[in-house]
Amino acid sequence: MTSHDFKATARTSQEARAVARTRTLIKGENGIGTVRRTVLPGGLRIVTETLPSVRSATFGIWAHVGSRDEPPALNGATHYLEHLLFKGTSRRSALEISSAIDAVGGEMNAFTAKEYTCYYARVLDTDLPLAIDIVCDMLTGSLIREEDVDVERGAILEEIAMTEDDPSDCVHDLFAYAMFGDDPLGRPVLGTVDTVNALTADGIRRFYRKHYDPTHLVVACAGNIDHAKVVRQVRAAFEKAGAFRDGPADPIAPRAGHRDLRTAGRVELQSRRTEQAHVVLGVPGLARTDERRWALGVLNTALGGGMSSRLFQEVREKRGLAYSVYSYTSSFADCGLFGVYAGCRPSQVHDVLRICRDELDHVARNGLTDEEIGRAIGQLRGSTVLGLEDTGALMNRIGKSELCWGEQISVDEMLARMAAVTPDEVREVARDILGQRPSLSVIGPLKDKQAARLHDVVA
Amino acid sequence: MTSHDFKATARTSQEARAVARTRTLIKGENGIGTVRRTVLPGGLRIVTETLPSVRSATFGIWAHVGSRDEPPALNGATHYLEHLLFKGTSRRSALEISSAIDAVGGEMNAFTAKEYTCYYARVLDTDLPLAIDIVCDMLTGSLIREEDVDVERGAILEEIAMTEDDPSDCVHDLFAYAMFGDDPLGRPVLGTVDTVNALTADGIRRFYRKHYDPTHLVVACAGNIDHAKVVRQVRAAFEKAGAFRDGPADPIAPRAGHRDLRTAGRVELQSRRTEQAHVVLGVPGLARTDERRWALGVLNTALGGGMSSRLFQEVREKRGLAYSVYSYTSSFADCGLFGVYAGCRPSQVHDVLRICRDELDHVARNGLTDEEIGRAIGQLRGSTVLGLEDTGALMNRIGKSELCWGEQISVDEMLARMAAVTPDEVREVARDILGQRPSLSVIGPLKDKQAARLHDVVA
Repeated sequence: MTSHDFKATARTSQEARAVARTRTLIKGENGIGTVRRTVLPGGLRIVTETLPSVRSATFGIWAHVGSRDEPPALNGATHYLEHLLFKGTSRRSALEISSAIDAVGGEMNAFTAKEYTCYYARVLDTDLPLAIDIVCDMLTGSLIREEDVDVERGAILEEIAMTEDDPSDCVHDLFAYAMFGDDPLGRPVLGTVDTVNALTADGIRRFYRKHYDPTHLVVACAGNIDHAKVVRQVRAAFEKAGAFRDGPADPIAPRAGHRDLRTAGRVELQSRRTEQAHVVLGVPGLARTDERRWALGVLNTALGGGMSSRLFQEVREKRGLAYSVYSYTSSFADCGLFGVYAGCRPSQVHDVLRICRDELDHVARNGLTDEEIGRAIGQLRGSTVLGLEDTGALMNRIGKSELCWGEQISVDEMLARMAAVTPDEVREVARDILGQRPSLSVIGPLKDKQAARLHDVVA
Repeated sequence: MTSHDFKATARTSQEARAVARTRTLIKGENGIGTVRRTVLPGGLRIVTETLPSVRSATFGIWAHVGSRDEPPALNGATHYLEHLLFKGTSRRSALEISSAIDAVGGEMNAFTAKEYTCYYARVLDTDLPLAIDIVCDMLTGSLIREEDVDVERGAILEEIAMTEDDPSDCVHDLFAYAMFGDDPLGRPVLGTVDTVNALTADGIRRFYRKHYDPTHLVVACAGNIDHAKVVRQVRAAFEKAGAFRDGPADPIAPRAGHRDLRTAGRVELQSRRTEQAHVVLGVPGLARTDERRWALGVLNTALGGGMSSRLFQEVREKRGLAYSVYSYTSSFADCGLFGVYAGCRPSQVHDVLRICRDELDHVARNGLTDEEIGRAIGQLRGSTVLGLEDTGALMNRIGKSELCWGEQISVDEMLARMAAVTPDEVREVARDILGQRPSLSVIGPLKDKQAARLHDVVA
C-alpha cells in the first residue's frame, strides 16, 4: 500500500481526526433499516444496518483486495489467503474457530472475487458478540503457519478440480480469459494448479500484511444490532490485536479509472467429453459506476433475466433447445462484461448460438418493446426488495457499497433509479453494448468441423 | 386414486362435513408466526403461517406424488408433468404465466422429489392475490398440449444432460441406485433419456388426472398474509376451474409403512474422465417418522455437518484431501438413507474412503463426546432458526409437514426436541445406523486396480 492509494480529503489537525466520525446515512422505516457509518481514527470503516424486526445478525469484514491485485506468479494468493485465515490465530486453533460458530448454529464463510474478499458470520442476534470476536480475530491475528499452508494447498487443489468438474461454472472463467487474455482480470480467482503449487507461506504472509491494513478494510454488520455497540467491540478487538494504526489515516478510496476493452471476435474452445456444450457469448459491458448501468440492468433482465425473457422464450420455451439459458452482467471498477450462457446438446450448439446472436443483434438494432421494459423494471424492483429479506443480503449490500462505491444508497433510491429508466435509455445502451462484435467461450465435445464454425458466430 | 387411499376418519353426516374446518395449530409470538389449517369440504387442505413483520409472501401447492409413484415405464413422468404445468392453461399461455410473475419481480418455480411435488411463487405481500391466482390456475387448468409435450421433451433431455455434467450431483442418484436397485426409489427423479423419450401426452395427462385431485393437494402460504382471505381466494379459484370435488371427501393420509432396507456391501462405479473422484459411502437410515430421527440429526451434524465436524476435520482440515466433504440424511415415509459425500483426487480416493469408513466404525463403536453432542445440538437449533428467515422456507416447512406428517409442530417444539437428545440416544442410533455394512457409489476415472479395491472399503 502506498500513499497515493489514499483518498484525498481535506487535511485537518491530528486531534480532530483522531476521533471516530459517525453519520446516519439512511433513516430507516417500513421494514427498511437505518444505515450508519463510523470511520475510526486509524481509517477503519464500520457500516451497519439496524433492523429491529429480525432475530439474526450478519457480521462481515471486506478487504480491498482481489485476484486482480495479484502479479502473475501470485495468481490465487488472495483466495489461498482467504482459506488460511480460517486456520488459526494466536488466540484460537482452526477447530476452535469453527467450533465456536458451529456451536451456535451460525454460518461462517468467506468469498474471494476479482476486486474484493469478504469474511462473514451469520448468527442469531444474541450471538453477535461472539461472531464479531471471531471474525475480527481471524482478520487481525492469523498465524499463516508453514504447515497450514501445506495442508491447505491440498484442499485448494481439490477446489480447483471440483470447479473443473462443473463446466457450467468454469466456462465463465474461460470467457473472462477470452475477453481479458493474459491479464489479472482474465485469470481465475482460484489460481491454477501451477501457481497454487508454487505459492509459499512467506509470499502469502507478505500479501496479507500488504492488503489487510485497517485502511483497506470495511466492517459491515446488519440485523437486529446496535451500531454503537458494534463499533465499540470492533475497535476493542482491533486494538487488542495491535491491528489499530498508530496515527490517523484515511480509508483507501474505491478503485477507479477507465479501461477500454475492445476484445471482439475471439473464440476460446476447451474440448472436453461433457454431455452438453456449455457456451458464453458476450461483449464488453459497463464499469460499476457507469450511469448507464440502470438501463443495462433493465436490458439484461428483459433479454435473459427470467422465464418471460427473450432468450428463455426463444431458446427453451419455443424450441426446447436448452434447460438453462440466461444473460448476466459483471462489473469491475473500470470495465465490465455482458454475457449470455447456455448449455445444450453439442449437435445443437450452432442453432443455439445463432438464436442468441440474432437476438442480441435484433435488440441492438430495434431495442425492446415498452411492455418488455415495463415488465423488466417491475421485475428488478420486486426482486431487489425480495432479495433483501435476510441479514446476509443486507450485510452484502452495505459492505460492497462502502468498499466499491464509497457511498450508501437507500433501497428506495435504488427502486426510484430503476423506475426512472426510459425506453430511450434502454435503446441507447442496447445499441452501444449489444451492437459490439461478440466473443465466445465453449466447453464441450465439439468435432473439428463444428469447432471451425464457431468463428462464424462471432463474425 | 382409489378409495383405500383415503384417511380413515370417523364418518359424520354430509351436511356437517360440507363445511370448511379451520383450526389454529400454533399460536405465534416473538417473530414466530401463527399457523392455521383449513380443510375444505372437497378435501383440499390449506395451511398458512402469518408473520406480520415481513414484506413478502410465498404461496405454494404441494402434490402427493413423486417419482416413487411411477411405474418403470413412466419414470420421469412426475417431473415431466411439473414442467408441463408451466406451459399454459385455458386462461393463460406459458408466456402469460411467466410474464405475470416476472412483472412483479416474483420468483416462481417448482421441484419434484421422490414423494412429492411442489409449485410455488414468492412475491411482495401486496402481490399475493396474483400469485394465488396463477399457481392455482396452473394446478387446476393446465392443458398439456401435444406440441408442448414435444418441445418440453428437449428441455428435459437438456436438464438430464446438465445433471450428468455435474458428477457431484449425480453420484447421489448412483448411490440411490446402489441402495435400492431397480425400484422406484432407486430411479432418478428426472427419468432417463429412454423413458423421457417414450413418454406421451396421453400418458402424462392420465398421470395428471390421477394425482392432482384436491384430496391429494396441500396449499401452503406464509408471510404477511391473512388466512381467511387466502382460503377464500383458493376456494374461489378451484371452484372457478371446476376442480372442486362434488361431494365431501377427506384428504389423503400421509404415506406410511415400514420397509426393511438391507442393502450392504454394494459398489456402483461409473467410470468417467472427471478431475475428481466423487464418492458416496452410506447405509440405510431412518424413515421420516422414526422417533430416533432427532438423535440421528445430532449425530449427522457432529459427524459431517459443519467445519468443526469429525469428517471435515479429518479429511480436509488435517490432511487437505478434499474440498467438499459432508454427511447427510434423506428420509422417506418407510425408510431412509445416511450417506457421506467426498470429492477428491482419484489417486487419493482410497485414503479418503478409508478415513471415512474408519470414522463411521469408530463412532458406531464409541459414540461421540458430550462436547460434540452439545455443539451439534446448538448447531441444529441455531441453524433451524436462522433457516426460517425467509417466507419461502416457512412455506416449505408447513407445506411439507402437512403432506408428509399430517401435523404441524412449532419451531419451539422442534428446538425442544433437539435439546432433549441425550448422549445415550446418540450412542444407540450411531450403533444401529453406522454399525451397518455400507455400500458405495463412485464416479471418476478409476483404473482397474483402484476399482477392484473399492470392494475392500465396504467389506
